[in-house]
Amino acid sequence: MRYNRVTPEIVERLRRIVGDGYVITSPGDLERYGIDEIEERYRRPPEVVVKPRTPEEIAAIMKLANEYRIPVTPRGAGTGLSGGAVPIHGGIVVSLERMNEILEIDVDNMMVTVEPGVVLADMMRAVEAKGLFYPVDVSTLESCHVGGNVAENAGGARAVKYGVTGHWVYGLEIVTPTGKIVRLGGKRIKDVTGYNLVQLVVGSEGTLGIVTKITFRLTIKPKCVLDLLVPFDTLDNAVAQVNKLFREEHGLAAIEFMDDLSIRAAERYCNTVLPHDDCEAHLLIQVDGMKEGEVWRAAERVYHAVVEGGAKEVFVADNRITREKLWRARRNIAEALKALNNYISVEDIVVPRSRIPEMARRLRELSRAHDIEVPLYGHIGDGNLHPTPVSGDRDEETWVRDLEAFLVDMFKAVRELGGNITAEHGIGFKRVKYLPLALDEVEIELMKAIKRAWDPNGILNPGKAVPLGP
Amino acid sequence: MRYNRVTPEIVERLRRIVGDGYVITSPGDLERYGIDEIEERYRRPPEVVVKPRTPEEIAAIMKLANEYRIPVTPRGAGTGLSGGAVPIHGGIVVSLERMNEILEIDVDNMMVTVEPGVVLADMMRAVEAKGLFYPVDVSTLESCHVGGNVAENAGGARAVKYGVTGHWVYGLEIVTPTGKIVRLGGKRIKDVTGYNLVQLVVGSEGTLGIVTKITFRLTIKPKCVLDLLVPFDTLDNAVAQVNKLFREEHGLAAIEFMDDLSIRAAERYCNTVLPHDDCEAHLLIQVDGMKEGEVWRAAERVYHAVVEGGAKEVFVADNRITREKLWRARRNIAEALKALNNYISVEDIVVPRSRIPEMARRLRELSRAHDIEVPLYGHIGDGNLHPTPVSGDRDEETWVRDLEAFLVDMFKAVRELGGNITAEHGIGFKRVKYLPLALDEVEIELMKAIKRAWDPNGILNPGKAVPLGP
Repeated sequence: MRYNRVTPEIVERLRRIVGDGYVITSPGDLERYGIDEIEERYRRPPEVVVKPRTPEEIAAIMKLANEYRIPVTPRGAGTGLSGGAVPIHGGIVVSLERMNEILEIDVDNMMVTVEPGVVLADMMRAVEAKGLFYPVDVSTLESCHVGGNVAENAGGARAVKYGVTGHWVYGLEIVTPTGKIVRLGGKRIKDVTGYNLVQLVVGSEGTLGIVTKITFRLTIKPKCVLDLLVPFDTLDNAVAQVNKLFREEHGLAAIEFMDDLSIRAAERYCNTVLPHDDCEAHLLIQVDGMKEGEVWRAAERVYHAVVEGGAKEVFVADNRITREKLWRARRNIAEALKALNNYISVEDIVVPRSRIPEMARRLRELSRAHDIEVPLYGHIGDGNLHPTPVSGDRDEETWVRDLEAFLVDMFKAVRELGGNITAEHGIGFKRVKYLPLALDEVEIELMKAIKRAWDPNGILNPGKAVPLGP
Repeated sequence: MRYNRVTPEIVERLRRIVGDGYVITSPGDLERYGIDEIEERYRRPPEVVVKPRTPEEIAAIMKLANEYRIPVTPRGAGTGLSGGAVPIHGGIVVSLERMNEILEIDVDNMMVTVEPGVVLADMMRAVEAKGLFYPVDVSTLESCHVGGNVAENAGGARAVKYGVTGHWVYGLEIVTPTGKIVRLGGKRIKDVTGYNLVQLVVGSEGTLGIVTKITFRLTIKPKCVLDLLVPFDTLDNAVAQVNKLFREEHGLAAIEFMDDLSIRAAERYCNTVLPHDDCEAHLLIQVDGMKEGEVWRAAERVYHAVVEGGAKEVFVADNRITREKLWRARRNIAEALKALNNYISVEDIVVPRSRIPEMARRLRELSRAHDIEVPLYGHIGDGNLHPTPVSGDRDEETWVRDLEAFLVDMFKAVRELGGNITAEHGIGFKRVKYLPLALDEVEIELMKAIKRAWDPNGILNPGKAVPLGP
């Protein structure tokens, strides 16, 4: 694809669309919009940033961009981990930060309708104030935008019980790549009227449309939540216990995993100590429910099952302070590893749950073979792991070369085990070159056919999610 | 679209692909493949029926059909209610009846992989024998094929708690409209590697690919199930109680609704009597869970809530015989209405749950205005109703004309209330002409763009789900 540059005339027309105060062209500011939480070396500044307030303004921007063939990259809070918001071909960044209203909380239908720039935790608190509950708790909940959650189909810890973002998205308003506004789905719990375009747009990383309104389904807030920290001597045994638990218990809200390298990094970073930090596998198991007695009984069953299954001990956190301590450690592993190393690469593989021990073995072999330390943690209940190779004292050039070789081997191993290369962070900029390792050629062709059909000029977030070109 | 006719040469080539014994050309047999459970007047016989055994054979059929531009209609058990399996342009019917193996039950990952021709109840029993549970219980579970469930994204009674078919589909193998075999998704609970093509194919009514393998996720079977039959004097009050229950209880597996006309038809057909059959609204509420004590306590809470909310009485069915009696009545309403009338039209509207009372009022008005009796029943917990206009003693011509006028008015009312025209039966042949009433022009254009991109010759199940043509 060939794109044109943003000219002063185009900037002028953008100003007329969104208003003078909402167009950014100063180089320093543009730099800030050139990256998200992906590694620094992926930074690419846009030529101009616009901050529209309405879908109509976005539609006008898309029409203009098609007219001049200028790439457009939508952007939320910039907390993404795969570079989905990086404007790799320059052009226009459409920042959705001003579209941040909670439009309606519909208590009877248990649905909330919001604009994409709403911060996830703000939405969660607003619906909880009405006795409702949005359960997808992404680690960055206090800063990420719900629009980004939809674009990447974000997961998080409670996906085990509650599913990922897409499970809760029932309605969308989008601006199409050619600048048309359309509403898809709605407050309908079941609907087979036409193709499921809602779930096609969810997780499409802003390549098929810019989301301007979202209707999420909600549930009711569990009245009692308990967390159990369970250290195991071996990962194999931890996974065996997880598989057993799943066949016996409905109420497991989260099953998280941290290895010894991860837990020790988190301890240093959070200035805390967790018990048995030399164990190969720590599970963090959350049980929730509506009735305190029932939740405690479920926790007791988990307790007996894991102790019988060889857990070293079980620590129960039944108050907010202890629970927060455990989850803070778990949520801060990536930050801790980043602080302790020159370079890291947060990966996001997924395998069928039963293949986790084999995957962990392969990772240990690859770690040795490539001489790269690879702390391992993640959402073990979903088979979703975040191996995070760290650079040690390598310089950037050596690191990028060594990392590349490691990743290719890791992705091949993942595929051999029936897994895939990203579970919740997205293909984005970072993984698009690995897509042929991950998906069949025919599937990539089917994806490209949709992209071409909806975005004939290839201008909406080009180079993400799916390779461009013929 | 212009299609060619099936010539003797094409039949000969089909015989070479699937084997002599698996090609049907005799007119009497072709008639049988010209209809599903849609009304008789929609019957259109194909020119030839083939019964392939492998995806490779289907791929060869699709390539041949593209070469000669012959329409191809995939067919499961023929239990669909919208004519999705009717070969409206003649051509080839691909019957999947021989592809009926349960390929793998993966206990550790709680997944089952099957061919499309497996009967739903057979799959349910097979996984239950391994301690697992597939919860989507479509009314026709003893005869429908799982491939058809996927094609129509079938719902059923337990969707309230467990979701519809699509919620459980994690992997598909399909033959594309141009005859390529591709696997989408897999045994991965989370996966954002590329667009969500699995959920695009689910519910696409066999227009985007022929499904040849399905991997369903499973859960664990509830150990205790109770059903409560709750008559209310008014529908308004019944709905108010449903909304209240949803905000307080997690464990509600089903909330079904039958009005007085439906319940009396079912009584006659099943030769049974149900209590308070003169009440305007009967709710059938299912509570399930893993622990008997907890389920009984939940049932008691429901009992107290609905009695306080004005229920006439509550009948608890805690044994298989009584439960079967209630569900048999509920499941046989459509059959009963069919037996008691010359013509009926089983409709499948959905509205936001809170709008059900208003929708019911509109239906009563429309019933009077069009002088058509409209028994009403359905999955009230999902906002999914099956108003079923019945002909009385009208002749076919009068009926078709009167029905048409009624349906247009009903669909307009549905849209005004934020609803849609089909929740679980599909657009199919029956509703494609109403699509412009149901969906925005832009959305239809986006759907057509996908259909054209994947099926450039427009030969796979043409005229279903989405209008053909430019």
